[in-house]
Amino acid sequence: MASTSGPEAASVPVLKDLTIENITENVHRINSQCADPRFKYVMERLVSHLHDFARETRLSFEEWMAAIKFLTEVGQICTDVRQEFILLSDIVGLSLLVDSIDHPKPPSSTEGTVLGPFHTHDASTLPNGTPISADPNGDPLLVLCSVKTMSGDPVAGVKVDVWETDSHGKYDVQYDDRGDKADGRAVIHTDEEGVFWFNAIVPVPYPIPNDGPVGKLLERLGRHCWRPSHMHFMFEKSGFDHLVTALYIRGSDYETSDAVFGVKESLIVGLDTVSSKLAKQYNVKEGTKLLKYDFVLVTDEETKKLRHDEAVKAMHALGREGMMIINGLPVPDVD
Amino acid sequence: MASTSGPEAASVPVLKDLTIENITENVHRINSQCADPRFKYVMERLVSHLHDFARETRLSFEEWMAAIKFLTEVGQICTDVRQEFILLSDIVGLSLLVDSIDHPKPPSSTEGTVLGPFHTHDASTLPNGTPISADPNGDPLLVLCSVKTMSGDPVAGVKVDVWETDSHGKYDVQYDDRGDKADGRAVIHTDEEGVFWFNAIVPVPYPIPNDGPVGKLLERLGRHCWRPSHMHFMFEKSGFDHLVTALYIRGSDYETSDAVFGVKESLIVGLDTVSSKLAKQYNVKEGTKLLKYDFVLVTDEETKKLRHDEAVKAMHALGREGMMIINGLPVPDVD
Repeated sequence: MASTSGPEAASVPVLKDLTIENITENVHRINSQCADPRFKYVMERLVSHLHDFARETRLSFEEWMAAIKFLTEVGQICTDVRQEFILLSDIVGLSLLVDSIDHPKPPSSTEGTVLGPFHTHDASTLPNGTPISADPNGDPLLVLCSVKTMSGDPVAGVKVDVWETDSHGKYDVQYDDRGDKADGRAVIHTDEEGVFWFNAIVPVPYPIPNDGPVGKLLERLGRHCWRPSHMHFMFEKSGFDHLVTALYIRGSDYETSDAVFGVKESLIVGLDTVSSKLAKQYNVKEGTKLLKYDFVLVTDEETKKLRHDEAVKAMHALGREGMMIINGLPVPDVD
Repeated sequence: MASTSGPEAASVPVLKDLTIENITENVHRINSQCADPRFKYVMERLVSHLHDFARETRLSFEEWMAAIKFLTEVGQICTDVRQEFILLSDIVGLSLLVDSIDHPKPPSSTEGTVLGPFHTHDASTLPNGTPISADPNGDPLLVLCSVKTMSGDPVAGVKVDVWETDSHGKYDVQYDDRGDKADGRAVIHTDEEGVFWFNAIVPVPYPIPNDGPVGKLLERLGRHCWRPSHMHFMFEKSGFDHLVTALYIRGSDYETSDAVFGVKESLIVGLDTVSSKLAKQYNVKEGTKLLKYDFVLVTDEETKKLRHDEAVKAMHALGREGMMIINGLPVPDVD
């Protein structure tokens, strides 16, 4: 398990006599041995914030131990189909923040939002027009969308991942007997006009999994665990920035208090109903509920430039003008 | 698993249109429903620092996902006898910091240090003079210590927990076949003169468990995983502040680069040898190695006052003079 001897002491930075005040710089000093400058910077910021957090709260041993136990429980409840750390990240707004930083969107493009813990990689690839939900109790919904560039040109051949809950507000993976049979999810591709469509059910509000440590945390915070009605979408096409987003149904309960901070005004959509013309064209009953949306993708190039510019601005705000920005990520200027 | 309906939307703070800039205040707003003001403050500082960390590093989705995976692995390797989150806290200096904040020490009292993950609650209570280690390969050591008050008076009846590794640098709990048989650890009480003594073995440097995610993190940071030779001590007596500390053997390898930031100058002790007089008195061979130390405990009252004063100072530095300090912990002044 353990190696039997360590490095020569002479090669290692010297620490001694650690205090509340000097512990942070000492941890930075010993971490300065890291050969990866980006990782070193991330750890420097992490340790600084972690220590400042403890100093500013005067964190007690009991609170620290409660945090250790909480994090252990979060880790131990995770399985192949349950990711409680993502859920934790979601309910403290970190997931939304990281998505916004990593996938900056120019005005008039479609905004991103939280991925959530329920995306899987085993959805069937279906032709346009296929039903994605086998739930007979759901309210039928025709989803009819397009994908365009910033200049309004249709984008053909985009891989679109869609996923939603059943009418009980549960994803397929939340059922023990799901097995390999994906339901309420599909991979669909846009046609030559950049259009994709499928039959689904009207999304319903649902509680995020609240029988674990994250549920207990929400309770302790006096917060509810509900998400408003929404459907998830993920877009992939070479040359375009990966877009993870969702559409929210206008007027849904919890529209303004989403437990995972996913709602953005531009992603809220009112439902329409299918006209007789559309009913014939898409082979659904007239009057069926209709979700229409035009997604706008951003090219990799535009995203890269925006990411870079925003990183430069952030380093300026932090007073760290000396940082290099490599692939949009700040890295100390090493000599 | 999930409840079937949530709260009335009207009772919940309103969120919408979250951005990189406003997400933090929005999370604070929704967490403001928390009924426990101390917990609300801790979460406010935690969320602020977590978000600032992401903004200052421009944390990428890939890095975030690596962190999610890392934390999950840390949680999943934990067992009844392995606490990887404590180890993680140790190697980023958080454990030392929390101990220093929660157990402030006036000059001339014995400083505290990290508890580490190897303390157990099943050590045998032994009379003074008993051997605590069954390891025949260890270098015999007489440990002869006293416990005094700040004014120099002996403290009788102190419960002293001691624990150390065997001569291979392993704690008993690191062996799969340990069962209920504690070794290298004991609970001893000070006598009427405030003295306690026992037979042990000379501590050796050892690597902290490095076959898990924390070991990989140390490797990535270019850091070694070694601790210098030391013996753990924990003191409990009603009326005195709980003292968790350790003595470090002067000249040990890694004395100045302890992987868990535990070494303090005042806790480094040179070994002596047992004189013929002491040998007779304590029934050991003349020339046996000797570890002598006078521990000085601080009363609960003194600690409480210090903790309060340091919290006031910290809130002043943070520009939060309006905070109440309750039991040494800052709490927002709620009306």
